[in-house]
Amino acid sequence: MAQNIYDQTDFFEGYRRLGRSVEGLDGAPEWPALRAMLPGIDGTSIVDLGCGFGWFCRWARAHGAKEVLGLDLSEKMLAQARAAGPDPAIAYERADLDELSLPAARFDLAYSSLALHYVSDIAQLFATVHRALVPGGAFVFSTEHPIYMAPTNPGWSVDAEGRKTWPVDHYLVEGPRTTDWLAKGVVKHHRTIGTTLNQLIRAGFTIGHVEEFRPTDAQIVATPELAEELERPMFLLVQARR
Amino acid sequence: MAQNIYDQTDFFEGYRRLGRSVEGLDGAPEWPALRAMLPGIDGTSIVDLGCGFGWFCRWARAHGAKEVLGLDLSEKMLAQARAAGPDPAIAYERADLDELSLPAARFDLAYSSLALHYVSDIAQLFATVHRALVPGGAFVFSTEHPIYMAPTNPGWSVDAEGRKTWPVDHYLVEGPRTTDWLAKGVVKHHRTIGTTLNQLIRAGFTIGHVEEFRPTDAQIVATPELAEELERPMFLLVQARR
Repeated sequence: MAQNIYDQTDFFEGYRRLGRSVEGLDGAPEWPALRAMLPGIDGTSIVDLGCGFGWFCRWARAHGAKEVLGLDLSEKMLAQARAAGPDPAIAYERADLDELSLPAARFDLAYSSLALHYVSDIAQLFATVHRALVPGGAFVFSTEHPIYMAPTNPGWSVDAEGRKTWPVDHYLVEGPRTTDWLAKGVVKHHRTIGTTLNQLIRAGFTIGHVEEFRPTDAQIVATPELAEELERPMFLLVQARR
Repeated sequence: MAQNIYDQTDFFEGYRRLGRSVEGLDGAPEWPALRAMLPGIDGTSIVDLGCGFGWFCRWARAHGAKEVLGLDLSEKMLAQARAAGPDPAIAYERADLDELSLPAARFDLAYSSLALHYVSDIAQLFATVHRALVPGGAFVFSTEHPIYMAPTNPGWSVDAEGRKTWPVDHYLVEGPRTTDWLAKGVVKHHRTIGTTLNQLIRAGFTIGHVEEFRPTDAQIVATPELAEELERPMFLLVQARR
Protein backbone atom coordinates (compact mmCIF):
# COMPACT_ATOMS: atom_id res chain seq x y z
CA MET A 1 0.00 0.00 0.00
CA ALA A 2 1.48 3.31 -1.09
CA GLN A 3 1.52 6.33 1.20
CA ASN A 4 -1.55 8.51 0.50
CA ILE A 5 0.18 11.82 1.08
CA TYR A 6 -2.03 13.75 -1.34
CA ASP A 7 -5.05 13.29 0.91
CA GLN A 8 -3.20 14.78 3.88
CA THR A 9 -4.61 18.29 4.35
CA ASP A 10 -1.31 20.21 4.53
CA PHE A 11 0.09 18.43 1.46
CA PHE A 12 -3.10 18.78 -0.57
CA GLU A 13 -3.47 22.48 0.29
CA GLY A 14 0.11 23.09 -0.86
CA TYR A 15 -0.15 20.92 -3.95
CA ARG A 16 -3.36 22.42 -5.25
CA ARG A 17 -1.70 25.85 -5.34
CA LEU A 18 1.24 24.78 -7.54
CA GLY A 19 1.40 26.10 -11.11
CA ARG A 20 0.80 22.64 -12.50
CA SER A 21 -2.36 22.26 -10.38
CA VAL A 22 -3.83 25.66 -11.22
CA GLU A 23 -2.80 26.01 -14.87
CA GLY A 24 -2.84 22.31 -15.74
CA LEU A 25 -0.49 20.85 -18.32
CA ASP A 26 0.77 24.26 -19.46
CA GLY A 27 1.90 24.97 -15.90
CA ALA A 28 4.38 22.06 -16.09
CA PRO A 29 7.62 22.98 -17.88
CA GLU A 30 8.29 19.35 -18.87
CA TRP A 31 4.89 18.93 -20.56
CA PRO A 32 5.98 19.94 -24.10
CA ALA A 33 8.83 17.39 -23.95
CA LEU A 34 6.51 14.67 -22.62
CA ARG A 35 3.84 15.54 -25.17
CA ALA A 36 6.40 15.15 -27.98
CA MET A 37 6.92 11.54 -26.86
CA LEU A 38 3.22 10.61 -27.12
CA PRO A 39 1.83 8.58 -30.00
CA GLY A 40 -1.23 9.83 -31.93
CA ILE A 41 -4.12 10.19 -29.47
CA ASP A 42 -7.10 10.15 -31.83
CA GLY A 43 -9.35 7.13 -31.34
CA THR A 44 -7.22 5.55 -28.59
CA SER A 45 -8.00 3.98 -25.23
CA ILE A 46 -5.81 5.42 -22.50
CA VAL A 47 -5.03 4.72 -18.87
CA ASP A 48 -3.51 7.53 -16.79
CA LEU A 49 -1.60 6.23 -13.73
CA GLY A 50 -1.78 8.94 -11.08
CA CYS A 51 -4.22 11.22 -12.90
CA GLY A 52 -4.44 13.82 -10.13
CA PHE A 53 -6.89 16.57 -11.07
CA GLY A 54 -7.49 14.91 -14.46
CA TRP A 55 -5.79 17.53 -16.64
CA PHE A 56 -4.23 14.93 -18.96
CA CYS A 57 -7.44 12.88 -19.17
CA ARG A 58 -9.36 15.92 -20.37
CA TRP A 59 -6.54 16.94 -22.76
CA ALA A 60 -6.57 13.44 -24.28
CA ARG A 61 -10.33 13.55 -24.78
CA ALA A 62 -10.02 16.99 -26.40
CA HIS A 63 -7.48 15.40 -28.76
CA GLY A 64 -9.79 12.60 -29.83
CA ALA A 65 -9.16 9.80 -27.32
CA LYS A 66 -12.00 7.29 -27.43
CA GLU A 67 -11.93 6.62 -23.69
CA VAL A 68 -9.72 7.46 -20.75
CA LEU A 69 -9.36 5.74 -17.41
CA GLY A 70 -7.86 8.05 -14.80
CA LEU A 71 -6.50 6.31 -11.70
CA ASP A 72 -5.37 7.93 -8.48
CA LEU A 73 -4.98 7.06 -4.82
CA SER A 74 -6.19 10.46 -3.64
CA GLU A 75 -9.93 10.81 -3.05
CA LYS A 76 -9.56 14.59 -2.89
CA MET A 77 -7.92 14.75 -6.30
CA LEU A 78 -10.42 12.37 -7.85
CA ALA A 79 -13.29 14.45 -6.45
CA GLN A 80 -11.84 17.60 -8.01
CA ALA A 81 -11.19 15.76 -11.32
CA ARG A 82 -14.80 14.55 -11.43
CA ALA A 83 -16.06 18.05 -10.60
CA ALA A 84 -14.07 19.55 -13.50
CA GLY A 85 -16.66 18.44 -16.02
CA PRO A 86 -18.65 15.29 -16.65
CA ASP A 87 -17.54 13.25 -19.68
CA PRO A 88 -18.98 9.76 -20.11
CA ALA A 89 -15.77 8.68 -21.87
CA ILE A 90 -13.60 9.49 -18.84
CA ALA A 91 -13.76 7.22 -15.80
CA TYR A 92 -11.96 8.31 -12.65
CA GLU A 93 -11.25 5.46 -10.26
CA ARG A 94 -9.36 5.03 -7.05
CA ALA A 95 -6.32 2.77 -7.36
CA ASP A 96 -3.07 2.09 -5.53
CA LEU A 97 -0.26 1.74 -8.08
CA ASP A 98 1.49 -0.65 -5.68
CA GLU A 99 -1.43 -3.08 -5.97
CA LEU A 100 -2.75 -2.31 -9.42
CA SER A 101 -4.66 -4.72 -11.59
CA LEU A 102 -5.74 -3.86 -15.12
CA PRO A 103 -7.51 -5.81 -17.86
CA ALA A 104 -5.27 -7.49 -20.45
CA ALA A 105 -4.53 -5.92 -23.87
CA ARG A 106 -7.00 -3.12 -23.17
CA PHE A 107 -5.14 0.18 -23.75
CA ASP A 108 -3.22 1.82 -26.59
CA LEU A 109 -1.42 4.17 -24.24
CA ALA A 110 -0.45 4.08 -20.59
CA TYR A 111 0.53 7.52 -19.34
CA SER A 112 1.92 8.61 -15.99
CA SER A 113 3.08 12.01 -14.82
CA LEU A 114 5.26 12.19 -11.70
CA ALA A 115 3.65 9.27 -9.90
CA LEU A 116 6.04 6.33 -10.35
CA HIS A 117 8.54 7.57 -7.75
CA TYR A 118 5.87 6.80 -5.14
CA VAL A 119 5.74 3.16 -6.25
CA SER A 120 7.91 0.71 -4.32
CA ASP A 121 7.60 -2.41 -6.51
CA ILE A 122 8.23 -1.01 -9.98
CA ALA A 123 8.83 -4.46 -11.55
CA GLN A 124 5.31 -5.54 -10.65
CA LEU A 125 3.76 -2.32 -11.94
CA PHE A 126 5.67 -2.51 -15.26
CA ALA A 127 4.51 -6.11 -15.74
CA THR A 128 0.90 -5.02 -15.10
CA VAL A 129 1.16 -2.13 -17.56
CA HIS A 130 2.80 -4.30 -20.22
CA ARG A 131 -0.02 -6.85 -19.98
CA ALA A 132 -2.65 -4.09 -20.14
CA LEU A 133 -1.32 -2.62 -23.41
CA VAL A 134 -2.16 -3.88 -26.88
CA PRO A 135 0.85 -5.06 -28.93
CA GLY A 136 2.61 -1.93 -30.16
CA GLY A 137 0.97 0.11 -27.40
CA ALA A 138 2.99 2.90 -25.79
CA PHE A 139 3.97 3.63 -22.21
CA VAL A 140 4.98 7.27 -21.69
CA PHE A 141 5.88 8.56 -18.26
CA SER A 142 7.72 11.15 -16.25
CA THR A 143 9.22 10.47 -12.84
CA GLU A 144 11.53 12.34 -10.52
CA HIS A 145 15.10 12.01 -11.74
CA PRO A 146 17.34 9.88 -9.52
CA ILE A 147 19.90 12.70 -9.30
CA TYR A 148 17.14 14.80 -7.76
CA MET A 149 15.95 12.02 -5.49
CA ALA A 150 19.14 10.29 -4.35
CA PRO A 151 20.72 12.76 -1.89
CA THR A 152 20.53 12.39 1.87
CA ASN A 153 20.07 16.12 1.90
CA PRO A 154 18.41 17.18 -1.35
CA GLY A 155 18.87 20.89 -1.94
CA TRP A 156 21.19 23.40 -3.55
CA SER A 157 24.59 24.08 -2.14
CA VAL A 158 26.23 27.44 -2.84
CA ASP A 159 30.01 27.70 -2.59
CA ALA A 160 32.21 30.68 -1.74
CA GLU A 161 32.19 31.91 -5.37
CA GLY A 162 28.40 31.71 -5.54
CA ARG A 163 28.49 28.56 -7.67
CA LYS A 164 25.31 26.53 -7.23
CA THR A 165 25.71 22.76 -7.10
CA TRP A 166 23.49 19.79 -6.28
CA PRO A 167 25.33 17.60 -3.77
CA VAL A 168 24.76 13.99 -4.83
CA ASP A 169 25.33 11.11 -2.45
CA HIS A 170 23.84 7.61 -2.01
CA TYR A 171 23.06 7.53 -5.73
CA LEU A 172 23.72 3.79 -5.87
CA VAL A 173 21.84 3.03 -2.68
CA GLU A 174 18.35 2.37 -3.98
CA GLY A 175 15.29 2.43 -1.76
CA PRO A 176 12.98 4.80 0.08
CA ARG A 177 13.76 8.47 0.62
CA THR A 178 11.80 10.52 3.11
CA THR A 179 11.65 14.25 2.47
CA ASP A 180 9.65 17.22 3.61
CA TRP A 181 7.95 18.64 0.52
CA LEU A 182 4.67 20.47 1.17
CA ALA A 183 4.27 18.16 4.18
CA LYS A 184 6.60 16.28 6.50
CA GLY A 185 7.57 12.67 5.81
CA VAL A 186 6.81 12.27 2.11
CA VAL A 187 8.13 8.84 1.04
CA LYS A 188 9.54 8.35 -2.46
CA HIS A 189 11.44 5.38 -3.90
CA HIS A 190 14.86 6.07 -5.38
CA ARG A 191 15.96 3.93 -8.34
CA THR A 192 18.78 4.49 -10.81
CA ILE A 193 17.96 5.15 -14.46
CA GLY A 194 19.53 1.76 -15.18
CA THR A 195 17.10 -0.02 -12.87
CA THR A 196 14.08 1.75 -14.33
CA LEU A 197 15.09 0.88 -17.90
CA ASN A 198 16.16 -2.69 -17.10
CA GLN A 199 12.85 -3.37 -15.37
CA LEU A 200 10.99 -2.06 -18.41
CA ILE A 201 13.08 -4.31 -20.68
CA ARG A 202 12.55 -7.27 -18.37
CA ALA A 203 8.76 -6.68 -18.48
CA GLY A 204 8.96 -6.95 -22.27
CA PHE A 205 9.12 -3.28 -23.30
CA THR A 206 11.35 -1.84 -26.02
CA ILE A 207 12.89 1.47 -25.00
CA GLY A 208 11.93 4.21 -27.48
CA HIS A 209 13.17 7.46 -25.94
CA VAL A 210 14.83 8.57 -22.70
CA GLU A 211 15.01 12.21 -21.76
CA GLU A 212 16.51 13.92 -18.76
CA PHE A 213 14.40 17.07 -18.82
CA ARG A 214 16.16 20.25 -19.87
CA PRO A 215 14.09 23.42 -20.26
CA THR A 216 14.41 24.91 -23.74
CA ASP A 217 16.21 28.21 -24.26
CA ALA A 218 12.83 29.81 -25.03
CA GLN A 219 11.42 28.53 -21.74
CA ILE A 220 14.38 29.99 -19.84
CA VAL A 221 13.90 33.38 -21.53
CA ALA A 222 10.20 33.32 -20.59
CA THR A 223 10.83 32.01 -17.05
CA PRO A 224 14.40 32.89 -15.99
CA GLU A 225 14.23 30.85 -12.77
CA LEU A 226 14.17 27.71 -14.94
CA ALA A 227 17.87 28.32 -15.69
CA GLU A 228 18.82 26.43 -12.53
CA GLU A 229 17.29 23.31 -14.10
CA LEU A 230 20.39 23.16 -16.34
CA GLU A 231 22.53 22.35 -13.31
CA ARG A 232 20.83 19.05 -12.45
CA PRO A 233 17.85 17.21 -13.92
CA MET A 234 14.62 17.17 -11.93
CA PHE A 235 12.63 14.86 -14.20
CA LEU A 236 13.24 11.67 -16.18
CA LEU A 237 10.93 11.13 -19.18
CA VAL A 238 10.63 7.73 -20.87
CA GLN A 239 8.77 6.32 -23.84
CA ALA A 240 8.61 2.55 -24.32
CA ARG A 241 6.59 0.21 -26.54
CA ARG A 242 4.99 -3.14 -25.86
CA MET B 1 40.39 14.32 -34.86
CA ALA B 2 40.30 13.29 -31.22
CA GLN B 3 42.91 14.46 -28.72
CA ASN B 4 45.72 11.87 -28.47
CA ILE B 5 46.35 12.34 -24.77
CA TYR B 6 47.52 8.75 -24.22
CA ASP B 7 50.65 9.36 -26.29
CA GLN B 8 51.60 12.36 -24.16
CA THR B 9 54.49 11.21 -21.95
CA ASP B 10 53.12 12.41 -18.59
CA PHE B 11 49.68 10.92 -19.25
CA PHE B 12 51.04 7.63 -20.56
CA GLU B 13 53.45 7.25 -17.65
CA GLY B 14 50.60 7.79 -15.20
CA TYR B 15 48.14 5.62 -17.06
CA ARG B 16 50.42 2.62 -17.44
CA ARG B 17 50.78 2.46 -13.64
CA LEU B 18 47.04 2.24 -12.91
CA GLY B 19 45.65 -1.04 -11.55
CA ARG B 20 43.74 -1.64 -14.75
CA SER B 21 46.90 -1.22 -16.83
CA VAL B 22 49.09 -3.48 -14.70
CA GLU B 23 46.59 -6.17 -13.71
CA GLY B 24 44.45 -6.00 -16.84
CA LEU B 25 40.73 -6.71 -16.74
CA ASP B 26 40.81 -7.94 -13.14
CA GLY B 27 42.23 -4.59 -12.08
CA ALA B 28 39.02 -2.84 -13.23
CA PRO B 29 36.21 -3.08 -10.66
CA GLU B 30 33.52 -2.70 -13.35
CA TRP B 31 34.85 -5.60 -15.44
CA PRO B 32 32.66 -8.35 -13.87
CA ALA B 33 29.54 -6.24 -14.54
CA LEU B 34 30.60 -5.51 -18.11
CA ARG B 35 31.56 -9.13 -18.70
CA ALA B 36 28.07 -10.23 -17.57
CA MET B 37 26.63 -8.12 -20.40
CA LEU B 38 28.68 -9.83 -23.13
CA PRO B 39 27.19 -12.39 -25.49
CA GLY B 40 28.91 -15.77 -25.99
CA ILE B 41 32.43 -15.13 -27.30
CA ASP B 42 33.27 -18.51 -28.82
CA GLY B 43 33.74 -18.40 -32.59
CA THR B 44 32.94 -14.66 -32.89
CA SER B 45 34.54 -11.78 -34.76
CA ILE B 46 35.10 -8.81 -32.48
CA VAL B 47 36.14 -5.18 -32.80
CA ASP B 48 37.48 -3.43 -29.68
CA LEU B 49 37.14 0.36 -29.91
CA GLY B 50 39.93 1.85 -27.81
CA CYS B 51 41.75 -1.42 -27.09
CA GLY B 52 44.59 0.17 -25.11
CA PHE B 53 47.11 -2.47 -24.03
CA GLY B 54 44.97 -5.21 -25.63
CA TRP B 55 43.83 -6.92 -22.43
CA PHE B 56 40.29 -7.49 -23.73
CA CYS B 57 41.50 -8.65 -27.16
CA ARG B 58 43.63 -11.35 -25.53
CA TRP B 59 40.85 -12.29 -23.10
CA ALA B 60 38.43 -12.70 -26.02
CA ARG B 61 40.89 -14.92 -27.89
CA ALA B 62 41.40 -17.02 -24.75
CA HIS B 63 37.62 -17.43 -24.66
CA GLY B 64 37.39 -18.70 -28.22
CA ALA B 65 36.96 -15.57 -30.36
CA LYS B 66 37.76 -16.35 -33.99
CA GLU B 67 39.37 -12.98 -34.66
CA VAL B 68 39.76 -9.68 -32.89
CA LEU B 69 40.47 -6.23 -34.29
CA GLY B 70 41.85 -3.91 -31.64
CA LEU B 71 41.73 -0.21 -32.50
CA ASP B 72 43.39 2.63 -30.65
CA LEU B 73 44.65 6.13 -31.32
CA SER B 74 47.72 5.70 -29.13
CA GLU B 75 50.85 4.35 -30.83
CA LYS B 76 52.42 3.71 -27.43
CA MET B 77 49.52 1.55 -26.29
CA LEU B 78 49.37 -0.33 -29.58
CA ALA B 79 53.11 -1.02 -29.37
CA GLN B 80 52.72 -2.45 -25.89
CA ALA B 81 49.67 -4.48 -26.98
CA ARG B 82 51.58 -5.97 -29.90
CA ALA B 83 54.55 -6.75 -27.64
CA ALA B 84 52.29 -8.62 -25.20
CA GLY B 85 52.28 -11.71 -27.40
CA PRO B 86 51.88 -12.35 -31.10
CA ASP B 87 48.57 -13.88 -32.15
CA PRO B 88 47.74 -14.05 -35.86
CA ALA B 89 44.03 -13.75 -35.03
CA ILE B 90 44.45 -10.38 -33.29
CA ALA B 91 45.12 -7.31 -35.42
CA TYR B 92 46.03 -4.08 -33.65
CA GLU B 93 45.46 -0.99 -35.78
CA ARG B 94 45.63 2.71 -35.27
CA ALA B 95 42.27 4.45 -35.57
CA ASP B 96 40.61 7.69 -34.50
CA LEU B 97 37.10 6.92 -33.20
CA ASP B 98 36.03 10.37 -34.39
CA GLU B 99 36.81 9.38 -37.99
CA LEU B 100 36.26 5.65 -37.90
CA SER B 101 35.35 3.54 -40.88
CA LEU B 102 34.64 -0.18 -40.60
CA PRO B 103 33.55 -2.83 -43.09
CA ALA B 104 29.80 -3.55 -43.23
CA ALA B 105 28.20 -6.50 -41.37
CA ARG B 106 31.61 -7.79 -40.35
CA PHE B 107 31.53 -8.23 -36.53
CA ASP B 108 29.43 -10.17 -34.02
CA LEU B 109 30.49 -7.92 -31.15
CA ALA B 110 31.69 -4.36 -30.85
CA TYR B 111 33.27 -3.72 -27.46
CA SER B 112 34.56 -0.52 -25.93
CA SER B 113 35.93 0.17 -22.48
CA LEU B 114 36.13 3.78 -21.29
CA ALA B 115 36.87 5.31 -24.68
CA LEU B 116 33.56 6.78 -25.89
CA HIS B 117 33.75 9.83 -23.62
CA TYR B 118 36.67 10.99 -25.78
CA VAL B 119 34.47 10.92 -28.89
CA SER B 120 32.82 14.19 -29.89
CA ASP B 121 30.43 12.98 -32.62
CA ILE B 122 28.80 9.97 -30.97
CA ALA B 123 25.95 9.79 -33.52
CA GLN B 124 28.40 9.19 -36.34
CA LEU B 125 30.30 6.55 -34.37
CA PHE B 126 27.12 4.70 -33.40
CA ALA B 127 26.01 4.65 -37.06
CA THR B 128 29.41 3.23 -38.07
CA VAL B 129 29.27 0.54 -35.38
CA HIS B 130 25.68 -0.40 -36.26
CA ARG B 131 26.62 -0.87 -39.92
CA ALA B 132 29.68 -2.94 -38.96
CA LEU B 133 27.70 -5.45 -36.89
CA VAL B 134 25.88 -8.46 -38.28
CA PRO B 135 22.11 -8.49 -37.61
CA GLY B 136 21.66 -9.52 -33.98
CA GLY B 137 25.24 -8.45 -33.22
CA ALA B 138 25.95 -6.85 -29.84
CA PHE B 139 27.50 -3.55 -28.83
CA VAL B 140 28.75 -3.56 -25.23
CA PHE B 141 30.53 -0.56 -23.79
CA SER B 142 31.50 1.34 -20.70
CA THR B 143 31.92 5.10 -20.62
CA GLU B 144 32.40 7.67 -17.90
CA HIS B 145 29.06 8.37 -16.23
CA PRO B 146 27.66 11.84 -16.93
CA ILE B 147 27.28 12.52 -13.20
CA TYR B 148 31.03 11.99 -12.93
CA MET B 149 31.78 14.08 -16.00
CA ALA B 150 29.31 16.97 -15.81
CA PRO B 151 30.64 19.16 -12.98
CA THR B 152 32.60 22.36 -13.52
CA ASN B 153 34.68 21.22 -10.60
CA PRO B 154 34.62 17.42 -10.48
CA GLY B 155 35.72 16.20 -7.07
CA TRP B 156 34.37 15.28 -3.66
CA SER B 157 33.04 17.87 -1.30
CA VAL B 158 33.07 17.17 2.43
CA ASP B 159 30.65 19.06 4.64
CA ALA B 160 30.92 20.04 8.31
CA GLU B 161 29.56 16.65 9.47
CA GLY B 162 32.07 14.79 7.29
CA ARG B 163 29.41 13.85 4.74
CA LYS B 164 30.96 13.26 1.33
CA THR B 165 29.00 14.52 -1.67
CA TRP B 166 29.63 14.95 -5.38
CA PRO B 167 28.62 18.48 -6.36
CA VAL B 168 26.79 18.25 -9.68
CA ASP B 169 26.31 21.25 -11.92
CA HIS B 170 25.96 21.83 -15.69
CA TYR B 171 24.52 18.33 -16.04
CA LEU B 172 22.21 19.47 -18.84
CA VAL B 173 24.90 21.49 -20.61
CA GLU B 174 26.37 18.92 -22.97
CA GLY B 175 29.75 19.37 -24.62
CA PRO B 176 33.46 19.24 -23.90
CA ARG B 177 34.91 19.13 -20.39
CA THR B 178 38.56 19.81 -19.79
CA THR B 179 40.07 18.25 -16.68
CA ASP B 180 43.48 17.52 -15.27
CA TRP B 181 43.72 13.76 -14.84
CA LEU B 182 47.23 12.29 -15.08
CA ALA B 183 48.03 15.26 -17.36
CA LYS B 184 46.73 18.78 -17.80
CA GLY B 185 44.00 19.58 -20.32
CA VAL B 186 42.38 16.18 -20.91
CA VAL B 187 39.29 16.76 -23.09
CA LYS B 188 36.20 14.58 -22.63
CA HIS B 189 32.71 15.00 -24.08
CA HIS B 190 29.83 15.17 -21.62
CA ARG B 191 26.49 13.71 -22.73
CA THR B 192 23.44 12.80 -20.68
CA ILE B 193 22.39 9.15 -20.43
CA GLY B 194 19.32 10.14 -22.45
CA THR B 195 21.43 11.43 -25.33
CA THR B 196 23.64 8.32 -25.36
CA LEU B 197 20.62 5.99 -25.43
CA ASN B 198 18.61 8.06 -27.92
CA GLN B 199 21.57 8.17 -30.31
CA LEU B 200 21.88 4.38 -30.08
CA ILE B 201 18.15 4.00 -30.79
CA ARG B 202 18.37 6.46 -33.68
CA ALA B 203 21.27 4.45 -35.16
CA GLY B 204 19.01 1.39 -35.16
CA PHE B 205 20.04 -0.33 -31.92
CA THR B 206 17.69 -1.95 -29.42
CA ILE B 207 18.69 -1.21 -25.83
CA GLY B 208 19.33 -4.45 -23.92
CA HIS B 209 20.79 -3.40 -20.57
CA VAL B 210 21.83 -0.16 -18.88
CA GLU B 211 23.90 -0.20 -15.74
CA GLU B 212 25.23 2.60 -13.60
CA PHE B 213 28.15 0.77 -12.05
CA ARG B 214 27.83 -0.11 -8.38
CA PRO B 215 30.57 -2.21 -6.77
CA THR B 216 29.19 -5.38 -5.22
CA ASP B 217 29.16 -5.81 -1.44
CA ALA B 218 31.89 -8.45 -1.85
CA GLN B 219 34.06 -6.00 -3.81
CA ILE B 220 33.64 -3.38 -1.07
CA VAL B 221 34.66 -5.89 1.61
CA ALA B 222 37.75 -6.80 -0.43
CA THR B 223 38.58 -3.18 -1.33
CA PRO B 224 37.02 -0.84 1.26
CA GLU B 225 37.90 2.33 -0.67
CA LEU B 226 35.33 1.25 -3.30
CA ALA B 227 32.58 2.20 -0.79
CA GLU B 228 32.71 5.79 -2.00
CA GLU B 229 31.51 4.54 -5.41
CA LEU B 230 28.06 4.11 -3.81
CA GLU B 231 27.79 7.89 -3.48
CA ARG B 232 27.89 8.66 -7.21
CA PRO B 233 28.38 6.49 -10.30
CA MET B 234 31.69 6.69 -12.12
CA PHE B 235 30.83 4.43 -15.04
CA LEU B 236 27.86 3.84 -17.33
CA LEU B 237 27.65 0.36 -18.91
CA VAL B 238 25.40 -0.34 -21.88
CA GLN B 239 24.47 -3.37 -23.95
CA ALA B 240 22.59 -2.89 -27.21
CA ARG B 241 21.74 -5.12 -30.18
CA ARG B 242 21.69 -4.46 -33.89
